[in-house]
Amino acid sequence: MTAATARRERPIALTRGDPSGIGPELALKAWVATHGDPDATAFLIAAEPGHLAALGKRLSLDIPIETIDHAAAAAVAFRRALPVIDSKLTVKGEAGAPDQADAAGTIASIETCVGLVEAGDAAAIVTNPIAKEVLYRAGFPHPGHTEFLGALAERRHGEKIHPVMLLWSPELAIVPATIHIALKDVPARLTRALLVRTGLTVAQDFRVRFGLAQPRLAFTGLNPHAGEGGAMGREEIEIIAPALAELKSAGVAVSGPHPADTLFHAAARKSYDVVIAMYHDQALIPVKTLAFAHAVNVTLGLPFVRTSPDHGTAFDIAGQGIADPTSLIAALRLAGRLARQCPTS
Amino acid sequence: MTAATARRERPIALTRGDPSGIGPELALKAWVATHGDPDATAFLIAAEPGHLAALGKRLSLDIPIETIDHAAAAAVAFRRALPVIDSKLTVKGEAGAPDQADAAGTIASIETCVGLVEAGDAAAIVTNPIAKEVLYRAGFPHPGHTEFLGALAERRHGEKIHPVMLLWSPELAIVPATIHIALKDVPARLTRALLVRTGLTVAQDFRVRFGLAQPRLAFTGLNPHAGEGGAMGREEIEIIAPALAELKSAGVAVSGPHPADTLFHAAARKSYDVVIAMYHDQALIPVKTLAFAHAVNVTLGLPFVRTSPDHGTAFDIAGQGIADPTSLIAALRLAGRLARQCPTS
Repeated sequence: MTAATARRERPIALTRGDPSGIGPELALKAWVATHGDPDATAFLIAAEPGHLAALGKRLSLDIPIETIDHAAAAAVAFRRALPVIDSKLTVKGEAGAPDQADAAGTIASIETCVGLVEAGDAAAIVTNPIAKEVLYRAGFPHPGHTEFLGALAERRHGEKIHPVMLLWSPELAIVPATIHIALKDVPARLTRALLVRTGLTVAQDFRVRFGLAQPRLAFTGLNPHAGEGGAMGREEIEIIAPALAELKSAGVAVSGPHPADTLFHAAARKSYDVVIAMYHDQALIPVKTLAFAHAVNVTLGLPFVRTSPDHGTAFDIAGQGIADPTSLIAALRLAGRLARQCPTS
Repeated sequence: MTAATARRERPIALTRGDPSGIGPELALKAWVATHGDPDATAFLIAAEPGHLAALGKRLSLDIPIETIDHAAAAAVAFRRALPVIDSKLTVKGEAGAPDQADAAGTIASIETCVGLVEAGDAAAIVTNPIAKEVLYRAGFPHPGHTEFLGALAERRHGEKIHPVMLLWSPELAIVPATIHIALKDVPARLTRALLVRTGLTVAQDFRVRFGLAQPRLAFTGLNPHAGEGGAMGREEIEIIAPALAELKSAGVAVSGPHPADTLFHAAARKSYDVVIAMYHDQALIPVKTLAFAHAVNVTLGLPFVRTSPDHGTAFDIAGQGIADPTSLIAALRLAGRLARQCPTS
């Protein structure tokens, strides 16, 4: 067996997310949809085998569950059953009714998967949705998933990590430079240093993980018409353009700041590989308009590949069998592709 | 001839816009595309016949130009030639090189068309793009087209007019509540009074002009995830929700504030007739992503129908014969439809 083959057979490590959300259901459905596909990378889930089996039975998804001891067993097991690394915990919450007692297991599942990928036993990590409020009440000190993964990676690698959120779909890849903050706080948060750091991380990961020799980054402006020469805001002149100049002199192929409204029609999308938008809705509106069900969240800047579906726990529809696995399947496929492009260890 | 027939035969009055931009070229192309279509409402243009004839010749658009004295002559003339109400002026600027001396004619063309529609001789007004800087240098005191039209209507009707900009396409109709201001100024500009006034105007014009008995208005939030219950901004709670409550008690069918990113995919778009977005890019990104070439700008709240193509003068490509008339043709068609729905006078 060559090293390349061995690498390809490393599974993706999938976290279970909040067990009362749609994550476990989506994992079952994703296994149904992909286990027979020889091109699909195998995945394992760090969860509770009994909980998954009971859920499958309730949803009439007749799925064999196989507890495995080592990630190495996943590739073979995956073709006949959903491989599970057993958390040895018991799920307390019901579908749609999250229980704070499950927070420890939710966190442990993430830690297990990160451990596997950091040890080189898994090819990538895909995370199912968590409910931040549930984790906060249990004392979780991180703002979200991405920051937690960054902290876990920092602990091991000993250097500061700045994770960058990318929304990826075949139609559009886009990064919001600022994310979950009030709109009124966006202008103050937008600094030249943030944009340069973001641009460098995006360029690096698009080279190494997406395999583009010279990725083309298009930056939006902050203001209508990108400020129209300063007539409607000066951030383009004072912050964005200087950041682009700095990135250019670092050898990054950048363009902009572009008026955001004319950047997302089909012809414009041919002019770049990825967009850096200035704030949440400026990035999320176009990608969810163009690729609602199949956009994938990718964390750039981590020492390993991490993707996740672009939706939340959806407690309102959990346990009903109606959750759509399209985004999780897309997240698993993209994780497999990125891991093959650039093996983690 | 019945009154209805007479109404249908009133032409649309098209302004020429900046004569050095793409407007005159688009007018020629729109005539070519529509004069043979019995369902298309005839249009006339208030401009310089010699300038149009020379431009047509240069662009190898072999188009007969017919000077008419009265709008009433347009319907018949339109089938054989482009009807022109002669400005009796001479255009000074060259294609792509605007001349400040043409500003008076640009303004006069708008005044002529408004005069025709206010007199009941034209069914609606469609405006070609102007270059604001050129008009400003000539002493034009209005921020833009829309405000000028509002002022002309106020002069005649003697009451305060609050024009509202609507971007319309078959895919999506959307109104930005604030428009051409820096992003940092948006939160302060967003008041309950503005949203209520905007909602009432939109509801009224969608009833009367678009013929919807009970139009459904969907409002976006300002912040990511519509603020997530106040966690990321409080404008949803303090401004938008109270405005929606006020509109509801006035009998308007409203919903929201909705997270903007999940409001524009195909399934979501079935749940409303028109969106009120909080700022420029939040409105313009989805409509230009979904309907780049054929979105039409409609001014609501005026005592007459006014539409315009959703692009500017495009001096960089003027006079080359490559300008795309899709949006102007869509603007003319929509103006015809709205005017038939609700005759102006």
